[in-house]
Amino acid sequence: MEVYHLYSGGKDSSLAAYILRKIGYEVKLITINFGILDSWKYAKETAEALGFSHEVIFLDRGILEEAAEMCIRDSHPSNAIQFIHEKALEEVAKLRHVERISDGTRRDDRVPFLDQRKTRSLEDRFNVQYIRPLLGLGYRTIRELTDKLFVVELKESEKLEKSDYEVELRYLLREKGIDPLTIFPKKHLQSRVLGWKKEKGHL
Amino acid sequence: MEVYHLYSGGKDSSLAAYILRKIGYEVKLITINFGILDSWKYAKETAEALGFSHEVIFLDRGILEEAAEMCIRDSHPSNAIQFIHEKALEEVAKLRHVERISDGTRRDDRVPFLDQRKTRSLEDRFNVQYIRPLLGLGYRTIRELTDKLFVVELKESEKLEKSDYEVELRYLLREKGIDPLTIFPKKHLQSRVLGWKKEKGHL
Repeated sequence: MEVYHLYSGGKDSSLAAYILRKIGYEVKLITINFGILDSWKYAKETAEALGFSHEVIFLDRGILEEAAEMCIRDSHPSNAIQFIHEKALEEVAKLRHVERISDGTRRDDRVPFLDQRKTRSLEDRFNVQYIRPLLGLGYRTIRELTDKLFVVELKESEKLEKSDYEVELRYLLREKGIDPLTIFPKKHLQSRVLGWKKEKGHL
Repeated sequence: MEVYHLYSGGKDSSLAAYILRKIGYEVKLITINFGILDSWKYAKETAEALGFSHEVIFLDRGILEEAAEMCIRDSHPSNAIQFIHEKALEEVAKLRHVERISDGTRRDDRVPFLDQRKTRSLEDRFNVQYIRPLLGLGYRTIRELTDKLFVVELKESEKLEKSDYEVELRYLLREKGIDPLTIFPKKHLQSRVLGWKKEKGHL
């Protein structure tokens, strides 16, 4: 049972990958990139440290351009992040060999988040299972599990070596002469997983 | 990390218990009973077959009486099942030693189901984590996993030796001279887990 799991190297997507493997899935980590920066390499490093197979899927730069325009129009990144995530899920779901897709979205997330209607639409249009291991977990449960499992690096979004959509989106905004700090929340701490806390029992 | 998991012996609550144990929780199975029938014993049998510790918690018969009245008023069991489940979660959550509660409710369930507001209210009022391992899983994913893991017995609700709320609720309705078949859907197939498909690797 293979599952293709959207992976940024952060705590949430790492915890979701851990759960999927524990319950019997063969987990293939997928990092989305738009060919602008090589920021996918941080997710690859983390994937290797955790012992998962990892692949980069390159999406059309036009998607990121459209997302940047949304950021500028809204002065906020929510709609843009949601838009990119839906495109990413669709692009992976449409690959012929893919029967199951997953991500690390959580119960308490606002974006990216697929409601019931969008979830079923995704599954029906592409004949895939969409699995979200963290959907039934609150922030305290997720914090407790990730604290137990992972060695984590915590930095401000601007400084962290990360592989999520934000990194290339911020870069593209800067290219367009827009300061990302006028769009993204100011002190936005984000996390990157560096490895397992204890080696034993997690693989 | 102990979690108190509401358990009927069915596929969903068994799968949720399996996931919780796999990701590192010490799982305590709890079956709710109203002291009318000894229907809890089927869940206990299944719990033992799966190698989980199991406990029965007896709730006030008045809760079931109120639920029976709801069934009669609505000619449908949805509100009653929802009512009992919320009471059951609260009763377990309020126990002093309980820090985490869980159940087998699924993404595609209508009842019992706690929406975001009720979920947070439960967690806040009783200072517990409420964990739902199946919330991010669709029916195909759940079927695939339970088919792989469990030996299952499938029967009509009226005939199955089960431990869920319905069993005592149907009995109480009959006692009141009401035919449960006028309230519950007719050909309602339900499942009971008998054991692991293969012994290895699940414990």
